[in-house]
Amino acid sequence: MENQSPKPIRCKAAVCRAAGEPLIIEEIVVDPPKAYEIRIKIICASLCHTDISFWQAKVAPVFPRILGHEAYGYARSCLSFQFDRCKYYFTAYRSVADDGVGEHVVGFVPGDAVVPSLLGQCDHCPSCLSEKSNLCTSVPVSMAPGMRRDGTTRFRDAQGNPVHDLLAVSSFSEYTVVDMNQVVKLDPAVPPKLACLLSCGGGTGVGAAWKLAKVERASSVAIFGLGSVGLAVAQGAKMCGASKIIGVDLNPDKENVGKMFGVTDFVNPTKLDKSSVIEVIGEMTGGGVDCSFECVGVPSVMTDAFRSTKLGNGKTIVLGMGKETDQLCVPALELLFGKSVIGSALGGIKPKTDIPIIAKKCMNKELELDGLVTHEVGLGEINTAFDLMLQGKSLRCIIWMGK
Amino acid sequence: MENQSPKPIRCKAAVCRAAGEPLIIEEIVVDPPKAYEIRIKIICASLCHTDISFWQAKVAPVFPRILGHEAYGYARSCLSFQFDRCKYYFTAYRSVADDGVGEHVVGFVPGDAVVPSLLGQCDHCPSCLSEKSNLCTSVPVSMAPGMRRDGTTRFRDAQGNPVHDLLAVSSFSEYTVVDMNQVVKLDPAVPPKLACLLSCGGGTGVGAAWKLAKVERASSVAIFGLGSVGLAVAQGAKMCGASKIIGVDLNPDKENVGKMFGVTDFVNPTKLDKSSVIEVIGEMTGGGVDCSFECVGVPSVMTDAFRSTKLGNGKTIVLGMGKETDQLCVPALELLFGKSVIGSALGGIKPKTDIPIIAKKCMNKELELDGLVTHEVGLGEINTAFDLMLQGKSLRCIIWMGK
Repeated sequence: MENQSPKPIRCKAAVCRAAGEPLIIEEIVVDPPKAYEIRIKIICASLCHTDISFWQAKVAPVFPRILGHEAYGYARSCLSFQFDRCKYYFTAYRSVADDGVGEHVVGFVPGDAVVPSLLGQCDHCPSCLSEKSNLCTSVPVSMAPGMRRDGTTRFRDAQGNPVHDLLAVSSFSEYTVVDMNQVVKLDPAVPPKLACLLSCGGGTGVGAAWKLAKVERASSVAIFGLGSVGLAVAQGAKMCGASKIIGVDLNPDKENVGKMFGVTDFVNPTKLDKSSVIEVIGEMTGGGVDCSFECVGVPSVMTDAFRSTKLGNGKTIVLGMGKETDQLCVPALELLFGKSVIGSALGGIKPKTDIPIIAKKCMNKELELDGLVTHEVGLGEINTAFDLMLQGKSLRCIIWMGK
Repeated sequence: MENQSPKPIRCKAAVCRAAGEPLIIEEIVVDPPKAYEIRIKIICASLCHTDISFWQAKVAPVFPRILGHEAYGYARSCLSFQFDRCKYYFTAYRSVADDGVGEHVVGFVPGDAVVPSLLGQCDHCPSCLSEKSNLCTSVPVSMAPGMRRDGTTRFRDAQGNPVHDLLAVSSFSEYTVVDMNQVVKLDPAVPPKLACLLSCGGGTGVGAAWKLAKVERASSVAIFGLGSVGLAVAQGAKMCGASKIIGVDLNPDKENVGKMFGVTDFVNPTKLDKSSVIEVIGEMTGGGVDCSFECVGVPSVMTDAFRSTKLGNGKTIVLGMGKETDQLCVPALELLFGKSVIGSALGGIKPKTDIPIIAKKCMNKELELDGLVTHEVGLGEINTAFDLMLQGKSLRCIIWMGK
């Protein structure tokens, strides 16, 4: 009788062997998922600036590593204990001989359209049960590599040496293994490119405005950095009814791009005469914005974002990730005048709950994020995606695995 | 016919003529109130650490100045337009020949028990109408001296030279003039000493736990600095049902003091072996407190307070005021894990709404703040109050004007 135990899969992946070096397309081995894990066939991934931070070794420098954490794919296999359909799914699993499957996986069936997420959601830890946190404590997020439950990797190179993961997602690979708590099931009608965007940058930006800042109707916001996250913040703020959405960027081309996403006013700090960006925003808003969003990850920009908010209850939302050693510094006395600073992973959204909601809002045109996809390449051209982002020419570049 | 227009009042006040020098009891002139202002006869005041910061010229160094911003007294005179009693009060005013009265004052009658507040509350500006801010924009708070509407002072010394105010309150004087938006009417049954405490420090501490952090039942808090504000935070947190209230102070005597106010655990950072206060609090709470409160006004303590909160949604409330140039610095990456920092004036309370509520909670023993009064002196001994606070021997020292 044929051995039907889960088997490793050989496939292609883009491996980062050293900080800042071009990725190398290699044949790797993806081990079977362990308990609570799902092996995913990645259809497409996209490059996020956070990948660049890890690639440049600004955070948790460990190599070789498979980067990527925004993606769309299919659950290849899992045991489902959904009560009335258990046998059927078990059979379905057995029919896919090269698939691996983890024990105790609940709620997924092979072929489910999914996005992996850097954050987990178990729905029963104190954080998941609270409205106020999205940092699941069952499988806590970590910058360090390693699967969330045992700290090991599921990837090996052709020589059998381990290859590290990124955020326990590693989506720049034809196959990956992700903890079931980090896998979000989506309506298969959601287009792959959109799903991909929502798994991190798009979801983060919309979530930061909608869930975290709870932007109010007729309020004012300033967005520092009009990359994908900042533009998604603009869409989120527009959806919430903000009347003034000020985009701040050093790149003059972002004025027009910003307006497509709902930005009403644009400030280029390099084009100001004698005023600072803080003074200009203060004048535009009669004393500062209700909410500012830092989407760059640069400490001095975080300070500017804070100083551009109004006294009384101005909120600064920090979304940008820079270096591991970066400090956010703000004038303490100004803070005492009722200001606040809120940091967030994934814009405060709970992935399994909120990504499907945001996807629906996109599909019914409450939100328009399609314009974030500016480029598309095949896995073999992944270094082009890096070049485009580093040159500021792309927003999101989709990387198709099948090409 | 006698001229019944408002007259200046000659009285005693403690004048600060230079940074860090003993205050001098002088005869001063308190001008009549202008429009929207009330002249108040101060019964007692108390010394707050914020007075010390101004006295030491850490903030807005301007002298000569009359310090003091916690107090209890009586509205000496005002025009009241309360519809059905107008004539009566107008008559009452006219009968007090040496009183001054401002036009357009509404809602007060001579003899009302009041506390002045550094924050105004007009009840019709956007901040006052919002639940989310306590910084009235009709008479915005300022560190610089000057009455809120015209920037001038109501005090002159015996030579006729102007003496500056503090926070438009200046309660170390037998009489003062305060904007009607900064005057809180209290039930005359509230004891003067308690009322005095609530006008700033006590109200700030309780408010920070109750209104701003919204401390939850069975949650954990850490309080950095067990002075009056910190101890009032402890009482506020206890009232809200916190199960672990960790007090942090360099002074070992504060362990027992803290326990009287509800502190359940005490950490003295100078007595730790090899661990940091952050590590110790992390161990005590399984990863950090839900809320930390910085009640010292020292940047490194603000950072420790932040780092002692849990990932996910740990909140740091900054209440302490230090130097004008102080910066709050926190690790940006740690912020991204769902932490937040909230600053506040007066612990987020709206003075006219919330001080009477807190007074009631004190009187029915939901809160016990009486122990904050450790010393009492007459105006002539006010420098003793400064010495006691600087030596860490007092919590609040009441300064009685009549003595």
